[in-house]
Amino acid sequence: MQVSELFVSAPGKAILHGEHAVVHGKVALAVSLNLRTYLRLETSTTGKVCINLPNIDTFFCWDVSELKQLITYSHGAKGDERKRLDPELLRTLREFADVTNGNLDTSNMATLSFLYLYLSLFRSGELPSLTVSVWSELPTGAGLGSSAAYSVCLAAALLSASGAIPTPLKEWDHTGRWCQEDLELINSWAFQGETIIHGNPSGVDNAVGTWGGMLRFLAGKIIPLNRVPLLRILLTNTKVPRSTKVLVARVKDKINKFPSIMTPVLDSVDAISCTCEKVLSEMTCEPITGEHYNILEELIDINQHHLNVMGVGHPTLDTLCQVTRTRGLHSKLTGAGGGGCGITLLRPETDYSVVQSTVQDLRDCGFDCWETSIGGPGVQQHSPLSIKEESLEILRRY
Amino acid sequence: MQVSELFVSAPGKAILHGEHAVVHGKVALAVSLNLRTYLRLETSTTGKVCINLPNIDTFFCWDVSELKQLITYSHGAKGDERKRLDPELLRTLREFADVTNGNLDTSNMATLSFLYLYLSLFRSGELPSLTVSVWSELPTGAGLGSSAAYSVCLAAALLSASGAIPTPLKEWDHTGRWCQEDLELINSWAFQGETIIHGNPSGVDNAVGTWGGMLRFLAGKIIPLNRVPLLRILLTNTKVPRSTKVLVARVKDKINKFPSIMTPVLDSVDAISCTCEKVLSEMTCEPITGEHYNILEELIDINQHHLNVMGVGHPTLDTLCQVTRTRGLHSKLTGAGGGGCGITLLRPETDYSVVQSTVQDLRDCGFDCWETSIGGPGVQQHSPLSIKEESLEILRRY
Repeated sequence: MQVSELFVSAPGKAILHGEHAVVHGKVALAVSLNLRTYLRLETSTTGKVCINLPNIDTFFCWDVSELKQLITYSHGAKGDERKRLDPELLRTLREFADVTNGNLDTSNMATLSFLYLYLSLFRSGELPSLTVSVWSELPTGAGLGSSAAYSVCLAAALLSASGAIPTPLKEWDHTGRWCQEDLELINSWAFQGETIIHGNPSGVDNAVGTWGGMLRFLAGKIIPLNRVPLLRILLTNTKVPRSTKVLVARVKDKINKFPSIMTPVLDSVDAISCTCEKVLSEMTCEPITGEHYNILEELIDINQHHLNVMGVGHPTLDTLCQVTRTRGLHSKLTGAGGGGCGITLLRPETDYSVVQSTVQDLRDCGFDCWETSIGGPGVQQHSPLSIKEESLEILRRY
Repeated sequence: MQVSELFVSAPGKAILHGEHAVVHGKVALAVSLNLRTYLRLETSTTGKVCINLPNIDTFFCWDVSELKQLITYSHGAKGDERKRLDPELLRTLREFADVTNGNLDTSNMATLSFLYLYLSLFRSGELPSLTVSVWSELPTGAGLGSSAAYSVCLAAALLSASGAIPTPLKEWDHTGRWCQEDLELINSWAFQGETIIHGNPSGVDNAVGTWGGMLRFLAGKIIPLNRVPLLRILLTNTKVPRSTKVLVARVKDKINKFPSIMTPVLDSVDAISCTCEKVLSEMTCEPITGEHYNILEELIDINQHHLNVMGVGHPTLDTLCQVTRTRGLHSKLTGAGGGGCGITLLRPETDYSVVQSTVQDLRDCGFDCWETSIGGPGVQQHSPLSIKEESLEILRRY
């Protein structure tokens, strides 16, 4: 074990443009959402391994000796274990954690994912006793990549604790970022965590959690974009529950029903993503002007109309757009739609009072609303000083 | 002179789909709007020619002898006079009617158009004394083809009075329609009237006023569609004034700014028009089902989103859509947008009480609103019995 106390965080994810269109072979832009998941790992001498997930009321402790027996039974493929799940270990863990009978709730999946990464990363040496506590600013199940942020934090912390990668935090810094090679390793293990939780993830969420910034996603290929500006946004959760599966099917049905009408709409969304990518890249290499923001706002408005055309709008999302428009702000749904979340672009010069009153208006509609940013850093190590007091208090409580 | 008292009417026009896209080479569907313009022509022995247009407070009388002198000065091309304006006659009339100095108000243009058609159609024989009174259910200047309906009525009535075409009304009928050849003649003279009023009309409005039903308009070519169902609608005038020229320029600018995003939107609008045409044609040859109406409603919703993408929406049009949606009804702007008018599709089974309360809601928003239909007949001759009491009263008052 290399560390006694370690803090890491990873961002959530939002789709800036291209949701749904991406299912039909078009470009999507995924961005990091600076509502973060924080993880504290503390080594101990208790002979116990504990996981505390207060967001989802999940608290477990096991004896290290008990866990040790689980690897004895497992002789998974060693070759490229970071790329593929070890089915035998997973089966053993499912039995151990009593989730064989389809009890796939968030708590069980999160626990399983933790145990899998813990045992996989420490199987070759001695199993350490440690406590992992995770606290997230992200709402769960809202399409904002909360499970990926969790998996990325787990992978980064356990890989660091095992010595597989170094801890990047310099003594005098508040935060540290891993090098590209280490990020690759974190991402691949995080993907395994995501696979346990989601079954068949696209890999976008864990990539955003790992690299941050913005990713271009096209036909299953994920390309992190070098430099993007940090954009201020409001993130609004309408709290209207929706099924991504049902919404994806609805779009598909509409394309099948009206191919000549809908195919051009997907082409237009594709062009929106490409135009947005171009503008964001320009914003990093030339002085940012109001015209850059004008274009970003126009793209948001056009895409929101297109998403309505696809049939994934919702009256609450119309309300979001109207309420923010009265303040001169532009919004679109993000992710699956049909309720769920929306983003509102803020300009650098947007007055604090405007933001505050917009947030209040949206909360008065019954929505959750946060001021945050997109395009911020991916997974990072923290000094305790760089973590908000209340988050630190929660992480150290357990 | 063939008649002593003659009544004719012509419908207004609405764009069902394809407004703005038509400017960029896409299909538009123009439909007749059953808010009609009624004309009464009465021959007299007073030696006077009178025109009464109570909608626009225009009332003029001239001595036949005075008008006769105007033709003396005119020696216009005789060859194909129904296709082209006679510039010399027009110049003479402009001087006579005192509109040379750019005084191009509605009243002057309507008067000029009347005098031009009167003198052109009667120039070869004796000028008759007669009184023409016109009363329209259409709001003027709202993009609903009121000037074309006026020109069509003038052409039909004056051609009939001159004996150039017969009066089609059978003794035992309420309304009569002219044959195809006569309609061609009416349309070509109506186009001249439109040209005097508008300068450079597309010819769509007078064609709709003449043939009624629905027309396909593509790259300057106008194709009347054989059979279309009569559709119940609400016609709402937001009364927000707008400049068609400014709105057309705005769409053009947006296409130039975002060609890759906007070109597919125009393609999608084109496909909406074609799909709509197909569905309407199916409705005339197979039993009409709810699914036909579902599709018509979906097309309206999609196109309204596309028009918003083009930048020709308006908050009042959003209000129209929302108010009608709460009643389960679907609306889109019609024509130039940016305010102006919208149409709301009603189903055959839509309850009278629903229609009444929707109309009331829309009037409470400050809009004008009429229940009417689209796809009805073009120009027709009427028996006095087939004209609403109050319209008849107005037409006979002068």
